[in-house]
Amino acid sequence: MKTFHAGLVGVGTVGTGVSKILLDKNSPLWEKLDCVPVLKGVADSNPDVKNKLNLPSDILFTTDAKTLLNNPDIQVIIELIGGLHPAKEIIMTALEKGKDVVTANKMLLALHGSELFDKARKHGKSISFEASVGGGIPIIAALRDGFIANRIESIFGIVNGTTNYILTKMTKENVKYSAALAEAQKMGYAEKDPTMDVEGIDSSHKLAILARIGFGVDFDYQCIYHEGISMVDLSDIWFAHELGYTLKLLAIAKKTENNIELRVHPTLLPHDHPLSSVNGVFNAICITGSAVGETMLYGKGAGQMPTASAVVADLVDVALGRAGITFKAMKTFSGCCERIPIASVSQFKTRYYLRFSVIDKPGVLAKISGILGNYEISIASVIQHKARENGNVPLIMMTHLAEEGNLQKAIAEIKKLDVIRDHTKFLRVEE
Amino acid sequence: MKTFHAGLVGVGTVGTGVSKILLDKNSPLWEKLDCVPVLKGVADSNPDVKNKLNLPSDILFTTDAKTLLNNPDIQVIIELIGGLHPAKEIIMTALEKGKDVVTANKMLLALHGSELFDKARKHGKSISFEASVGGGIPIIAALRDGFIANRIESIFGIVNGTTNYILTKMTKENVKYSAALAEAQKMGYAEKDPTMDVEGIDSSHKLAILARIGFGVDFDYQCIYHEGISMVDLSDIWFAHELGYTLKLLAIAKKTENNIELRVHPTLLPHDHPLSSVNGVFNAICITGSAVGETMLYGKGAGQMPTASAVVADLVDVALGRAGITFKAMKTFSGCCERIPIASVSQFKTRYYLRFSVIDKPGVLAKISGILGNYEISIASVIQHKARENGNVPLIMMTHLAEEGNLQKAIAEIKKLDVIRDHTKFLRVEE
Repeated sequence: MKTFHAGLVGVGTVGTGVSKILLDKNSPLWEKLDCVPVLKGVADSNPDVKNKLNLPSDILFTTDAKTLLNNPDIQVIIELIGGLHPAKEIIMTALEKGKDVVTANKMLLALHGSELFDKARKHGKSISFEASVGGGIPIIAALRDGFIANRIESIFGIVNGTTNYILTKMTKENVKYSAALAEAQKMGYAEKDPTMDVEGIDSSHKLAILARIGFGVDFDYQCIYHEGISMVDLSDIWFAHELGYTLKLLAIAKKTENNIELRVHPTLLPHDHPLSSVNGVFNAICITGSAVGETMLYGKGAGQMPTASAVVADLVDVALGRAGITFKAMKTFSGCCERIPIASVSQFKTRYYLRFSVIDKPGVLAKISGILGNYEISIASVIQHKARENGNVPLIMMTHLAEEGNLQKAIAEIKKLDVIRDHTKFLRVEE
Repeated sequence: MKTFHAGLVGVGTVGTGVSKILLDKNSPLWEKLDCVPVLKGVADSNPDVKNKLNLPSDILFTTDAKTLLNNPDIQVIIELIGGLHPAKEIIMTALEKGKDVVTANKMLLALHGSELFDKARKHGKSISFEASVGGGIPIIAALRDGFIANRIESIFGIVNGTTNYILTKMTKENVKYSAALAEAQKMGYAEKDPTMDVEGIDSSHKLAILARIGFGVDFDYQCIYHEGISMVDLSDIWFAHELGYTLKLLAIAKKTENNIELRVHPTLLPHDHPLSSVNGVFNAICITGSAVGETMLYGKGAGQMPTASAVVADLVDVALGRAGITFKAMKTFSGCCERIPIASVSQFKTRYYLRFSVIDKPGVLAKISGILGNYEISIASVIQHKARENGNVPLIMMTHLAEEGNLQKAIAEIKKLDVIRDHTKFLRVEE
């Protein structure tokens, strides 16, 4: 039995999961493979980790990652610290020292992916990152290898379990955002400071990774439009439901005629869309390819063991030599992909859900639809309910395809009407 | 740019799709890779194929596969004839001649997989077969590589598009089996002789492949229990719907405490199960792994371009050298996996849906439930509708978990009751 020596840097939730698999003498790896990755060293700034993991004496433990980086016996570094620094420096040094890298660090890849890939290529080494998107779902491999014969047309993903848990709770149990968030925090699905998740930032990191591989292009990460769920109003979930739509936080990468749209925002999907029934902390990614058509991969997008499952799959890929071959062969990882322009918000073209709060008097609908019409926005359906206690009436409209620039102008104009009360809400729709 | 030379044997629907991708000068392969598989030769018994494909003059066309097998310039043979013979002989010869093999032949792999793998191993070559299950869905790669750190606990799949189309039509449009089949034939989804699909044989071939890879074991293909949809009664779809279940033809591989269950049969799934909303010709496979938990892969399970997408992905794997590494490293493909016993039908343990046709008189329920109780089958719910025109009443029961051996005995005994009319129907349930 051949072995391949791994050094693990960062023992948080996922790192602990990876150790569990690699330290398990009954691990399925030994049954399935003739070359198995084994843990040779572990680094964590917290010295208690050594006892927590119950590390055998033949595995080096250190509080200084450099010790692993300088160890010539270690062939691959598993970076599971997260964040930009010192993760980036550790990966750069590992590559310089001739070690392959496995990482789950979506933020680092989103922001500095090209630079890291460049470095890896320069040193003839590979970076594997299956665990950076969709936890245990083998989405990177599918997009990169499984669908290689395809031109990728679109990627639609629920790639953040925290927000999907919150939206599912709001939808199914009819609770407000704040209460659903509190519950997610209690369950350990949301951090104390939930900003990265709820504002769509984590999703935008993952979208950057998916879009680069899917479309084989490079772009400025900052161009990704992201909008979170913290402003989602329960009443919009109800009205949308009545119209046959479910609200999800989607990461969307889509080729249009002229450019590429990259956006993260609350999105209405028809009830029978495969993503509509993805609930709780589950993730799912729909990929449409020129040959394969519509596909979806579904599974747990986070958590200790699902994410560890993906990290270890990457490790096996490195150990067998496949990761190196892939990295070398794929132009996507050259760090020199074509840089392409990303659509601005005003260029987005979707259908829209609009909720106006209006005074209940004759002619209101005519005024609003008149302005929309002036901006080439045509209305697909309307619902109007009874007046609320404050005398205002919610007026809901679904539009046909429209440009967001036009929509913004129309809303600004509608806002000035004397029949309009409160803020006008709009949500983007995908089919 | 490096190239890798492929010979295609069998130009039916899928073969035509593969040619389309490989002959396309704007194929995404050229953009994505630094080593691309190119078509060097095509063999088909029908000489018209040459013109149909509009083959360029530098590509060899022959009506005799041997010409390609004997051509030292061809490095990989793509077998897309289907069926057992001469596909098996062609693959065997290709391996002997030092060529790798890519095939979509599920029947051949199900029946002679071990022998073929053995041969490949002996000659240091590989067999790739992503397209044999789930069309364009990268299910083989996921099960083999993506989930390598997992012990696979169960595989539940809708792996036959024809039957899923028929069942969807019956369910959504309330049409009988015969009418739905006729429509499937009209649409080109079902063959003139639909036996392989509708009797669950095709699904059982695919199940054999998935179970071998997933569980890393070998078994006699003939041990797979299969039951098709030709006897499905529309009324059972209705009653099951009322109870909260959707009927699907599932291929199921499940580890139980003592053995492995391998079975294909119409199965009731709760409406909110991810497989329940897989409709029409789509396929989906749910895999539960020890680390990754529940996952699902979804996409078009058949058709020209989705299947060609998988064949070409395999070809790239061969061209890059990854297929050879995988084949060598994976003990699953050794042709010498542990042969394990498969559960017999009487050992199956599921919940059951039962439909009795009874005479509407007092004590009927007591009699039936008494017999079920004697065989340790307890009832979870009952529905009874008004009497039909012929005076018989359908009595529907959902049981808790029970052994099928016991169920069969109970049904045989219940059949003898004088209150029983017609045949008793039962369906297996999975959660």
